[in-house]
Amino acid sequence: MNKQELFEQIRLKRSFLCVGLDPDERKLPAHLADAEDPIFEFNRAIIDATAPYCVSFKPNLAFYESCGLKGWQSFIRTVEHIRANHPHHFIIADAKRGDIGNTSAMYARTFFEELDVDALTVAPYMGEDSVTPFLNYAGKWVVLLAATSNKGSLDFQMTEDAEGERLFEKVLRVSSAWGGDDRMMYVVGATRGRLFEDVRRLAPHHFLLVPGVGAQGGSLEEVCRYGMTDECGLLVNSSRGIIYASSGTDFAEAAAAAARQVQEQMAEILTARGL
Amino acid sequence: MNKQELFEQIRLKRSFLCVGLDPDERKLPAHLADAEDPIFEFNRAIIDATAPYCVSFKPNLAFYESCGLKGWQSFIRTVEHIRANHPHHFIIADAKRGDIGNTSAMYARTFFEELDVDALTVAPYMGEDSVTPFLNYAGKWVVLLAATSNKGSLDFQMTEDAEGERLFEKVLRVSSAWGGDDRMMYVVGATRGRLFEDVRRLAPHHFLLVPGVGAQGGSLEEVCRYGMTDECGLLVNSSRGIIYASSGTDFAEAAAAAARQVQEQMAEILTARGL
Repeated sequence: MNKQELFEQIRLKRSFLCVGLDPDERKLPAHLADAEDPIFEFNRAIIDATAPYCVSFKPNLAFYESCGLKGWQSFIRTVEHIRANHPHHFIIADAKRGDIGNTSAMYARTFFEELDVDALTVAPYMGEDSVTPFLNYAGKWVVLLAATSNKGSLDFQMTEDAEGERLFEKVLRVSSAWGGDDRMMYVVGATRGRLFEDVRRLAPHHFLLVPGVGAQGGSLEEVCRYGMTDECGLLVNSSRGIIYASSGTDFAEAAAAAARQVQEQMAEILTARGL
Repeated sequence: MNKQELFEQIRLKRSFLCVGLDPDERKLPAHLADAEDPIFEFNRAIIDATAPYCVSFKPNLAFYESCGLKGWQSFIRTVEHIRANHPHHFIIADAKRGDIGNTSAMYARTFFEELDVDALTVAPYMGEDSVTPFLNYAGKWVVLLAATSNKGSLDFQMTEDAEGERLFEKVLRVSSAWGGDDRMMYVVGATRGRLFEDVRRLAPHHFLLVPGVGAQGGSLEEVCRYGMTDECGLLVNSSRGIIYASSGTDFAEAAAAAARQVQEQMAEILTARGL
């Protein structure tokens, strides 16, 4: 999916919500325990219920890997289900991969050829040759970690160099030479507030993937005030606040209601911005 | 395995070699193509042939994930084979994981509970809460990326802050408060030469995992001159130079010969150091 198509989906759905599919086996509704593949059954219900209110789904690989082989099976089924039933939804594999060049090329093959997701999150620490193998696929995206939403993001990402440039700013600046805003997005945590202004100075047109609204305490209004562009430029992720809205048999309806609530806020913001 | 046990294995084997198990499906010896699980058959032969000459095995997850479900099956079988047949070998899952706290905890569960490897490589970009969940397991290790062997390592890892501290040095200094040298190791590329002196100022007693000898051009002598401690303190990895020493039916014997050649160099160095 290219940038224009993503923006069109946002205008059509009046939403820039990404639903994080992070199914913790120990938190699934009890009545799913007997299913042949409880994680996939959970995801399928969540996906079908929330699809009208979001433009993207983001499974985090950790939650699948922790269940071993059957977890990978659930992940693959989840991607296939989205592709087959919601072909206009943007799929982000949240895997935070990144290795030396020939190894990153193997990861790229996994996620973009075998699995056919639209985007993969990548960690920048190892630099250019760890990232560029992911940029060789037409219509596929790298979502590079820049300023993350967690407390530990303060440990290294905010370190200033001798010229006062912070590490996340250097990541934005240097990586923009590797691929343009038609190929790269950046992770910027919703908890970072006015930092979005600094991000926009370096990445005025890029899409940003924004985790941290909801359970982690970020504010949607603030993110939009400082981070939105005239092509929206934001995919705001919510995971726990939507997928665990209820732990009963009504979990999918509750997830839909939670997603719809966010979508309605987003629609207002888009309209106010004339988008 | 604790630090003392690892050092004992090094003294016993006269080797600090780690064999990188990075089996690229497209490079396997042709006669294995008909096996039910070619990657596992390849690994099993390499492991059994090289085990006398090394103290550690390091499968890189990228090479398994790229084969989808059957790749994960091969990875699991590989770990189980080492555990069952070479119980004193140190298993490093080279996965370069790292995410927000609750997600890193899921990865820790995968690798340390489900799979029972000894160590996992972790990327530092997301800071403390992305790393500490891996430190809650007795006898298990985090191998944190510090100064990697690839060209892209120059992009961010060498960036100096206002006080002249480079990012990899900050990673070493800050992370040493998260866990001691009984729980953490660092990745330092063999291509970095005298940088090992700088690393040793900050991490005098830690084990270092050293990739980049062989195919990537690093020198074993230089690594040992600047990086070795009085408990050795080094695990030097070689992947392609050993596992692809021959592509014929003699691949395992050729791998053994290549591993033995490195081991003999290592034995000389250890002896010269009085270890």
